[in-house]
Amino acid sequence: MKKIVIGQAGGPTAVINTSLVGFVESSIKNNLLYGVLNGYEGLVKDNLIELKDETLDLVKKHKYIPGACLGSGRYQLTDEKIEIAVNNLKKNDINALVFIGGNGTMAALQKIKNVADRIGYELQVIGIPKTVDNDLGMTDHAPGFASAAKFVAFSARDISKDLESMKNFEQVRIIETMGRNAGWLAAASGLLKESEEEGPHIIYLPERKFHTDEFLVDIKNLVKEYGTATIVVSEGIKLDNDNNIQKAVVNGRVVLGGVSKRLEDIVKENLGFSARGENLGMNQRSFSLATSSQDRIEAYDVGKKASALIDNNETNVMVTILNSDIKGYDYHLESCLLDKVTSLGEKALPNEFINNPQKYYEWLRPLIGGDLSPYPSVPGGKTNYAKQCCIFK
Amino acid sequence: MKKIVIGQAGGPTAVINTSLVGFVESSIKNNLLYGVLNGYEGLVKDNLIELKDETLDLVKKHKYIPGACLGSGRYQLTDEKIEIAVNNLKKNDINALVFIGGNGTMAALQKIKNVADRIGYELQVIGIPKTVDNDLGMTDHAPGFASAAKFVAFSARDISKDLESMKNFEQVRIIETMGRNAGWLAAASGLLKESEEEGPHIIYLPERKFHTDEFLVDIKNLVKEYGTATIVVSEGIKLDNDNNIQKAVVNGRVVLGGVSKRLEDIVKENLGFSARGENLGMNQRSFSLATSSQDRIEAYDVGKKASALIDNNETNVMVTILNSDIKGYDYHLESCLLDKVTSLGEKALPNEFINNPQKYYEWLRPLIGGDLSPYPSVPGGKTNYAKQCCIFK
Repeated sequence: MKKIVIGQAGGPTAVINTSLVGFVESSIKNNLLYGVLNGYEGLVKDNLIELKDETLDLVKKHKYIPGACLGSGRYQLTDEKIEIAVNNLKKNDINALVFIGGNGTMAALQKIKNVADRIGYELQVIGIPKTVDNDLGMTDHAPGFASAAKFVAFSARDISKDLESMKNFEQVRIIETMGRNAGWLAAASGLLKESEEEGPHIIYLPERKFHTDEFLVDIKNLVKEYGTATIVVSEGIKLDNDNNIQKAVVNGRVVLGGVSKRLEDIVKENLGFSARGENLGMNQRSFSLATSSQDRIEAYDVGKKASALIDNNETNVMVTILNSDIKGYDYHLESCLLDKVTSLGEKALPNEFINNPQKYYEWLRPLIGGDLSPYPSVPGGKTNYAKQCCIFK
Repeated sequence: MKKIVIGQAGGPTAVINTSLVGFVESSIKNNLLYGVLNGYEGLVKDNLIELKDETLDLVKKHKYIPGACLGSGRYQLTDEKIEIAVNNLKKNDINALVFIGGNGTMAALQKIKNVADRIGYELQVIGIPKTVDNDLGMTDHAPGFASAAKFVAFSARDISKDLESMKNFEQVRIIETMGRNAGWLAAASGLLKESEEEGPHIIYLPERKFHTDEFLVDIKNLVKEYGTATIVVSEGIKLDNDNNIQKAVVNGRVVLGGVSKRLEDIVKENLGFSARGENLGMNQRSFSLATSSQDRIEAYDVGKKASALIDNNETNVMVTILNSDIKGYDYHLESCLLDKVTSLGEKALPNEFINNPQKYYEWLRPLIGGDLSPYPSVPGGKTNYAKQCCIFK
């Protein structure tokens, strides 16, 4: 019987609660479970609730609901605050700490573990991967990403179809996706494309340098060829010589978003086309109707795996998803040391995918599950995916 | 055997192609069908294609795809252009003209009919209703609306759940929906709400006067009570004494969008909360994963009904959907004179719904079909909808 604290951190996903429920349902029988409220802030403020009876039922009820039901949030952990957090855990005789999160979370867990070691406090520390950006290293992908990718892919396909009908009114749409430094999500937007004429036509990634002049030439050529241009940009692309994008800073973190509106203005001013910037916004990480069935299954399983790691007395590790890519898709779960994850930093979209979009989509398709038909109401509807028709820049 | 022209006009919906296919499949056997490209522009430019063989197959293939596959668009019809359009139809010996559209389309059809009558050209004119705004009179509702409402309802619920988890980072989200003069779509955002704590908390409609001062007090009180505030605004609300919203004019039409960003700034400046404006954008009228199954059925049926009206030699009418509201939901189709539709103008959300949100949701729920569970992955998942918990302003 261990006393375990579980928390959620960073931006939520459509399936972060599924991972929580996967963990809780696996470990509740033989352990005392506590939830920490509002992520790391709750550790520092010693804000724990025991998960039993009503609180346990409430958590279970959230299995299919977006958002982080324990509260997540963003919170700057200083060295001093980490000391406080560790002392709080020690005071409560906690044996294990589990957090569901991304790169920042894995780094924080490692720091907590270091402080605990230094003061001779035996604390198991386990990370459960979660990110819509898919920028977490050592794992083939992380839960949350596939559902976000599905939302982005359908949005780009459907918004592009809508634009095609409106040629005489509007020529250019610039769709903005999440992805601060990694282009996985932006790149997913071309997944459902069936022909070269269809959008999205070009996808601009944060991994490559963005040149406004080239962008304008691209748009001009696309409108000339197809009558419309549907463009996708990651929120993280950097415009050259441009300081016109409003950036907000909250709790020390720069909030991105706005590059599509700026590009809308640039297209209007320079090319005279009617253009519209579309930021896909918070729906990317939460829209429940776009949840990938495969993502849901894996999200539950990584929670369950974390519980097994605690039973096996492992520590300082993150659950990883490995893709045994021999014939078809078959994932299995392992674990790896936290310092391997943190030393890698944010995982960018690799060149082998940037240079070969079709290869990227072959990798991505099974993650989205058996619900990939772009005609969701057609029983058994099939699709001929276009070969080599998306351009990543 | 009649020669019939069918066209699509105005902003597309997720099911406008379903109506087209409903019409085409019903009338192809006994008639010669032509599609007009890019809405009214195609009438003026005499841009018709015969629907047979490949073109017919292509149309049928679009049954479940968003956007208007014949091309739609916006086009200003002057008296002179209407004369040209009518002369083109006459020259081609067209017996019937069918258009799928909203208020503007019904007015245009009526003008075309008037010119045809004046010159003694016998032309049947039939309108098929379509609008995401639901502002078309004489019909209980119009195809396209329910799918848009479903997208808005899930977005508001899910974005609100996401925000609840991020209390320590972000307090206010302002979600902007379509609805130039009618609040049907904005009001739909509260459909999935299960308790007073959940968002959306307040929905601001274009039918009511918006007061920025009161809005700020509302936000302050909500954050005090719940920690966060999720607000929905129709794109059509008018801020008092505020000229800071960018408006674009395309083809003589003011393109709305941007009020949520302006309100974001106002909240930040006046209350110091972290706030985010979210425009739900073009996904509202196109996102295929949110298509309502009931909307799909009715969209097909109104197309079929238009074909029957032509067989019956009716003219100058629009297909209408009547809700035989005796016990449960049961719709049937009728027709009404175009001038009755146009004389009513844009249909606002009525006071009986504005003053009683619950009554509105009871009316709306069956239109969204049997796919209303907010936990779409739960087999048979049930929901206890909150009573009287949304505020319309």
